[in-house]
Amino acid sequence: MTDQAQTPTVESVSESMENIVLGEDDQPLSKKALKKLEKEREKARRKQEREAREAEERAAREANYVDYSAGSYGQLPLNQSQERTNRCREKIADINGSRLGETVLLRARVQLSRPTGSRLCFFSFRQRTESIQGVVAQDKDTVSKAMLKFATGIQAESIVLVEGVLVAPVEPVKSCTVHDAEISIKKLFVVSPSLDRLPFTLEDASRPEEEYEKEDAQFSRVTLPTRLDNRVIDLRTITNQAIFRIQSGVCQLFREFLLKQDFVEIHSPKIIGAASEGGANVFAVKYFKTNAYLSQSPQLHKQMCICADFERVFEIAPVFRAEDSNTHRHMTEYVGLDLEMAFEEHYHEVMDLIGKMFVYIFDGLNQRYSKEIAAVCRQYPFEPLKYLPETLTLEYPQAVQMLRDAGVDMGDFDDLSTENERFLGKLVKAKYDTDFYILDKFPLCVRPFYTMPDPSRDGYSNSYDFFIRGEEIMSGAQRIHEPSLLQERARAHDINPATIAPYVDAFKYGAPPHAGGGIGLERVVMLFLNVGNIRRTSLFPRDPKRLEP
Amino acid sequence: MTDQAQTPTVESVSESMENIVLGEDDQPLSKKALKKLEKEREKARRKQEREAREAEERAAREANYVDYSAGSYGQLPLNQSQERTNRCREKIADINGSRLGETVLLRARVQLSRPTGSRLCFFSFRQRTESIQGVVAQDKDTVSKAMLKFATGIQAESIVLVEGVLVAPVEPVKSCTVHDAEISIKKLFVVSPSLDRLPFTLEDASRPEEEYEKEDAQFSRVTLPTRLDNRVIDLRTITNQAIFRIQSGVCQLFREFLLKQDFVEIHSPKIIGAASEGGANVFAVKYFKTNAYLSQSPQLHKQMCICADFERVFEIAPVFRAEDSNTHRHMTEYVGLDLEMAFEEHYHEVMDLIGKMFVYIFDGLNQRYSKEIAAVCRQYPFEPLKYLPETLTLEYPQAVQMLRDAGVDMGDFDDLSTENERFLGKLVKAKYDTDFYILDKFPLCVRPFYTMPDPSRDGYSNSYDFFIRGEEIMSGAQRIHEPSLLQERARAHDINPATIAPYVDAFKYGAPPHAGGGIGLERVVMLFLNVGNIRRTSLFPRDPKRLEP
Repeated sequence: MTDQAQTPTVESVSESMENIVLGEDDQPLSKKALKKLEKEREKARRKQEREAREAEERAAREANYVDYSAGSYGQLPLNQSQERTNRCREKIADINGSRLGETVLLRARVQLSRPTGSRLCFFSFRQRTESIQGVVAQDKDTVSKAMLKFATGIQAESIVLVEGVLVAPVEPVKSCTVHDAEISIKKLFVVSPSLDRLPFTLEDASRPEEEYEKEDAQFSRVTLPTRLDNRVIDLRTITNQAIFRIQSGVCQLFREFLLKQDFVEIHSPKIIGAASEGGANVFAVKYFKTNAYLSQSPQLHKQMCICADFERVFEIAPVFRAEDSNTHRHMTEYVGLDLEMAFEEHYHEVMDLIGKMFVYIFDGLNQRYSKEIAAVCRQYPFEPLKYLPETLTLEYPQAVQMLRDAGVDMGDFDDLSTENERFLGKLVKAKYDTDFYILDKFPLCVRPFYTMPDPSRDGYSNSYDFFIRGEEIMSGAQRIHEPSLLQERARAHDINPATIAPYVDAFKYGAPPHAGGGIGLERVVMLFLNVGNIRRTSLFPRDPKRLEP
Repeated sequence: MTDQAQTPTVESVSESMENIVLGEDDQPLSKKALKKLEKEREKARRKQEREAREAEERAAREANYVDYSAGSYGQLPLNQSQERTNRCREKIADINGSRLGETVLLRARVQLSRPTGSRLCFFSFRQRTESIQGVVAQDKDTVSKAMLKFATGIQAESIVLVEGVLVAPVEPVKSCTVHDAEISIKKLFVVSPSLDRLPFTLEDASRPEEEYEKEDAQFSRVTLPTRLDNRVIDLRTITNQAIFRIQSGVCQLFREFLLKQDFVEIHSPKIIGAASEGGANVFAVKYFKTNAYLSQSPQLHKQMCICADFERVFEIAPVFRAEDSNTHRHMTEYVGLDLEMAFEEHYHEVMDLIGKMFVYIFDGLNQRYSKEIAAVCRQYPFEPLKYLPETLTLEYPQAVQMLRDAGVDMGDFDDLSTENERFLGKLVKAKYDTDFYILDKFPLCVRPFYTMPDPSRDGYSNSYDFFIRGEEIMSGAQRIHEPSLLQERARAHDINPATIAPYVDAFKYGAPPHAGGGIGLERVVMLFLNVGNIRRTSLFPRDPKRLEP
């Protein structure tokens, strides 16, 4: 302990009051002035005492003091795979209140650290779509003051290795996905630090719109361009993790359904020698000493596969469109879910199969991804998609009639404008209580030249679109499989048959009747989750103004 | 019956012999000459009789004759989905000797028709990888001569609709996949005719090499360029149908394994703003008013997904390489099976997982695609792939030693030439009896700048290649996840860190240690089946000289 003899005590100062004390004017001080002086001296003495004590403590620490947390915290050396202990590391997804008392080890991202009082620091740790609370509490034998200080200094978004005991939180942790357990941290290491100031916090990036609309809201809104410019950080939000797990799910369900129906997965070339669907909207590529193009769809090649007896094929692959469209639903590169199928008698075999496939996808998402759907809903609240077990099919003339009855002025063979598409979606929802339906029998003149004409009704065709929430997500049709009719229809569309000779020739050696369609993956996810902009459902979107990151 | 009164009978001619008959010299004919004349007259009379009878029959046919097969054969009108009976149509795959006596209806391709005698025509019908024999036999009540004639005239590769009864063939049908049943055809319609002369027959395209090598072989060999120029026909062979079902299978198995391991499927952009792996070998794209490039690999974006906490990602997508390599194993566009994974302690977690994944793929192919593998083997005979349940892993120095012991002169840090790769494959096969192995710990100098150096052995790295039958099918490594080391290694590779700033920046906000790899789909299929040229395992291959079809 400190020896106090050399500094004056309160008692000794009181005693000295017997002597006469002179002020700055050499006159004896008044009693009031004396009291003030005494107070000042007392204050100085205490400061002196404190500083001495602190210096002594510091000296003791430096000389003999052992940090009882040493080895339980710190920055780990760069992982170059130096060792492999095979010790199990937990997934937050596997942690819940039934495991209280267990010691767990896990690598996680620090979403947030919040020092509370002088001896506590709360953390929220994140893995993919899951998060859990952790607490570093200074104590006498495990967590030293130095360890607490280290913990408090860890930058948000650093990756840490945490060891601790699962305990019951004082009250359910609403801010994390694990509500009924938290980690009482015993060891805490930084695996990879966040070195730079974040362009936005994950809290702000995860906030639902309604929070900004509150009167006293003082949060900074993270705009879509800012998110996309810093996509690596933006994608870390639980909402985005959920969106892209759902996107992955759509692909699995699409394939699952089709493989069960004996489809074969194909991979068609994306670099093509001639612009397959006319020269417009196509990206040109320099190909050694000649020119090539990026495929605008696998249309030709998937039909060639049908001509080559694959019978039923699908492909998931990028599709490139050089359209200068800057809308909420257009990108220059998107993922096409394409399928093509030989049918026996009627193209409705194909249309019906695709309808069933979508129901399978929607059912599968609702069953397998309910947690992810709920996560998206927390940030972007939406009504769950309404769809019927047997998909509603309307014919084009019925749709035109519904629109006319609702006051829209349009001709029998006019195409649907985006506006009318949406309006029709509302009318269908009101009448049939479904967000998902098929529109069959489009006018021939608004479809590509290779669309099979309706055999009985002039001006119509064997073609269909599928809609979710009033927006088109798939276009398809029976294709013409007979060369001379194909040429005739090309001429009717002012296409010189010579320019499409290789396409027409594919049908010269016998082709079964077939139909198919192409689905935009990002549109399906956007509309299923109703997130309003296709860039939210593309990992690294490309549009006429965005080529990065 | 015909009235014969107006034509002279044998009797009447004999009677007229009583009269004197003069020859060309106006002298009476000798008895011999008379006999000759009589014979000639008899012949002419019979001819007349026959012609009259035939004319009469023809007239009768045209007037009253009913073809008892009418309605059971012919060219169907163009299918525009006129009707839908929902009558079941068979798959040849479901037909076998246990179903004799059943009536079946099926749509199939005519691979071959072979008229035999005057009343029979044999067919072989094909669907995908299956074929069955059919017989049109003229009889008195079902199959008329006219129907037989129609059947015989059907061009090979036309698509037909066949109805008939399953019967036991006289002897097992070796030339078809269904040996113990054939179709006794009752109805036969052409759905879609083959209109043009085939550039080669499906028989020739399906012939194993050994048949050409027989002394008396007179077949035309179908070269690879001819096949690729006419790919729609070439792909119809059972061998090719099998190859691409196996290719589809590799993708399913790859995904199945990874999804079970909690990987997420991603889709990264193929149009990129800057050449990600240096400016060489990259295709340039005109992108509105600026320039862009085609992605040479999803390397950057899959690593960005790791930085964005996806933890484990995979992607199946096209990869573009502007390399002017004209070899059996290079293409300018191929399908990449890419994966990237954050690991906990050691990159061998990832390498081991990939090793297990390949074993899962090989096992799966052997179990699920044995018929297809057998089909390919018939045309391109090969030794089944040998692989171990626990994949053999060698370290680079071991491989160098094996090569040196076998007389190869190479330095410790020299890269493996294609020749040495193959030779090493042979040495490994001889010593360890496996066609599949991993080579770990490549020299740092032969790997990309972002490869993590080995922490304990100077000059080596945490990187690996996977080999099948002595050819590389996957390259992978632990990646550097720390910005300053990444910059240092870039400089060591003479890359200006400024040019890769966006790549380096992705690691500034914390990144877990991670490793991964990229697999060439077509190479895996080519080497598993040992078909010798990568163009055989790509639907529509692209190389520096081929952009079509």
